[in-house]
Amino acid sequence: MKKHNFSAGPCILPAEVFQKASEAILNFNDLGLSLLEISHRSKDFVSVMEEARALVKKLMKLGDDYEVLFLQGGASLQFVMVPFNLMKPGGKAAYLDTGTWAAGAIKEAQKLGTVDIVGSSKEQNYSFIPKNYQIGAEYDYFHCTSNNTIYGTQMKSFPETDTLLVCDMSSDIFSKVLDFSQFDLIYAGAQKNMGPAGTTLVVVKKEILGKTDKNIPSYLNYQLHIDKESMLNTPPVFAIYTSLLTLQYMEKNGGIEAAEKRNEAKAKLLYDEIDRNPLFEGYAVKEDRSLMNVSFKLTDESKKEAFDKAWKEAGINGLNGHRSLGGYRASLYNALPIESVQVLVNVMQSFS
Amino acid sequence: MKKHNFSAGPCILPAEVFQKASEAILNFNDLGLSLLEISHRSKDFVSVMEEARALVKKLMKLGDDYEVLFLQGGASLQFVMVPFNLMKPGGKAAYLDTGTWAAGAIKEAQKLGTVDIVGSSKEQNYSFIPKNYQIGAEYDYFHCTSNNTIYGTQMKSFPETDTLLVCDMSSDIFSKVLDFSQFDLIYAGAQKNMGPAGTTLVVVKKEILGKTDKNIPSYLNYQLHIDKESMLNTPPVFAIYTSLLTLQYMEKNGGIEAAEKRNEAKAKLLYDEIDRNPLFEGYAVKEDRSLMNVSFKLTDESKKEAFDKAWKEAGINGLNGHRSLGGYRASLYNALPIESVQVLVNVMQSFS
Repeated sequence: MKKHNFSAGPCILPAEVFQKASEAILNFNDLGLSLLEISHRSKDFVSVMEEARALVKKLMKLGDDYEVLFLQGGASLQFVMVPFNLMKPGGKAAYLDTGTWAAGAIKEAQKLGTVDIVGSSKEQNYSFIPKNYQIGAEYDYFHCTSNNTIYGTQMKSFPETDTLLVCDMSSDIFSKVLDFSQFDLIYAGAQKNMGPAGTTLVVVKKEILGKTDKNIPSYLNYQLHIDKESMLNTPPVFAIYTSLLTLQYMEKNGGIEAAEKRNEAKAKLLYDEIDRNPLFEGYAVKEDRSLMNVSFKLTDESKKEAFDKAWKEAGINGLNGHRSLGGYRASLYNALPIESVQVLVNVMQSFS
Repeated sequence: MKKHNFSAGPCILPAEVFQKASEAILNFNDLGLSLLEISHRSKDFVSVMEEARALVKKLMKLGDDYEVLFLQGGASLQFVMVPFNLMKPGGKAAYLDTGTWAAGAIKEAQKLGTVDIVGSSKEQNYSFIPKNYQIGAEYDYFHCTSNNTIYGTQMKSFPETDTLLVCDMSSDIFSKVLDFSQFDLIYAGAQKNMGPAGTTLVVVKKEILGKTDKNIPSYLNYQLHIDKESMLNTPPVFAIYTSLLTLQYMEKNGGIEAAEKRNEAKAKLLYDEIDRNPLFEGYAVKEDRSLMNVSFKLTDESKKEAFDKAWKEAGINGLNGHRSLGGYRASLYNALPIESVQVLVNVMQSFS
């Protein structure tokens, strides 16, 4: 039976990516060896790394003033690396508090320096994106989270700042067209739109580094990773190769522009049903609704058992809401086909 | 043509591990979904994590006073985490300097506190393991590297210490029987004997944590990883699953005891030929020779072209020495069959 995978991450990737990744484990590049058993310094893997780094810049339309790294440790390690690299001794940073992951980033920065929370929707349980805040030049950087997976909110624009703009794009990278050159540092765990769990994309403007006069631990130092072309130590070979396959698929299928159109159509289909059908109610305020994660609930809990049975019987997977919010969450990442959204909408319609 | 993979890491794993890993990317546990697209919180992946953690303790014959973690960032991030977690404010640590990776660990610890190098073979280009040093109770911990991949040296015993014993076992873990309970903290990048690149094993005695009164960044804090059962954030799912497959294979094939016997036979076969054949010369002093990495060179460089041609024609891969040492390096990790060593020895014999 055909599965419809709405998992919040790790999540669906294109079928052809799974196929090629599976084959590479048995015989990579026709070497007669597995991708997993060759040296990361071999020319076969070095060219994977080079192509992946170049393709990210190409898709984002960024120039040589940016560097691309594939690191480990997830966004959680970036919560630590960002202040280590960008916060000056005695300096302070501005953070926007839009959800669980933003709060996690704030907590780590507070261990390393002073943090001002310039906007927060915590009191309203993160159901919207705060706006109308100011970020002056007194801050070493401003940090925000572009998409909040749990609450289903997404930043539709980014503030003009007098300081560096840093963004955690873990859950919506490559999902919509942005002027990526407005950012000084972007990071994203791969396991939504870019690849499997196990690597973290970092895109950094070179000129912002080396200004804090701190003795940064080597693995936490962006500049050292750049100097070693993202091979300071053994990289997570499989996760990077599978990310490359996903990036290649994206390029072949119209780049970020085409992904955005597909994502808008999928989100519209589902939000329209939520707004039409009195049995369902969205969580996020409408203007801040995420294209990637749609959090919603039943307005009549007595229908829960029947609804759960129906979507499971339709082959739908991963629709349960995050444990902190309950209800349902449909994640509509790049690789989810609109046919899967239609199957969900059909089930919802059968309850109206 | 059959390949004989002597790569220093990432390196050969059992063929059945590659097969099962490849299959899981297309259909994991017969779910009709890829291992890469399911939630790490799903019961299917949680049981992978639980079994992998338990199996490490079983193979090492360790009790509940130890915890097992699968982290990211390689041994390089452990170079940072060890002093962060174990070095007390104003305290100091003792390090043994046996090679490039030991020196890397020392460099990171020096950024966070005082380091005494209690023994070093650096002046002799790391051709032996220093002995006869003392480690008193004035140190917060003692750190050593059990096997040195580049130079082909290996610690045959570990010192009695009055402080904590910390060991980087990246390149010889699970290769020979040890009393693992003599260690307080063991870490190892997976990509030699345990799995693919992308995860790092940490085995830690619980009682040693929480004694430094430091505000440790979350991802760098062993205790937080323990509290979250090695899922503080999204773990590197594929690398951990493939490590589990390798651990299962190890258990099924006689555990560490049987692996040790196989490794001793392989190393003897190769070292005997090096000692017999006047055309070859080993690098490490005999008493410190590694069972895992055999570094050697030609005594007559005029034979180099012919020797290189011969081993390549025999299907041998990954025999070139590390760029810092030159010559040859045959890595004999657990999964390398003795038949491959015999092929290499046959080539060497054809030159005697």
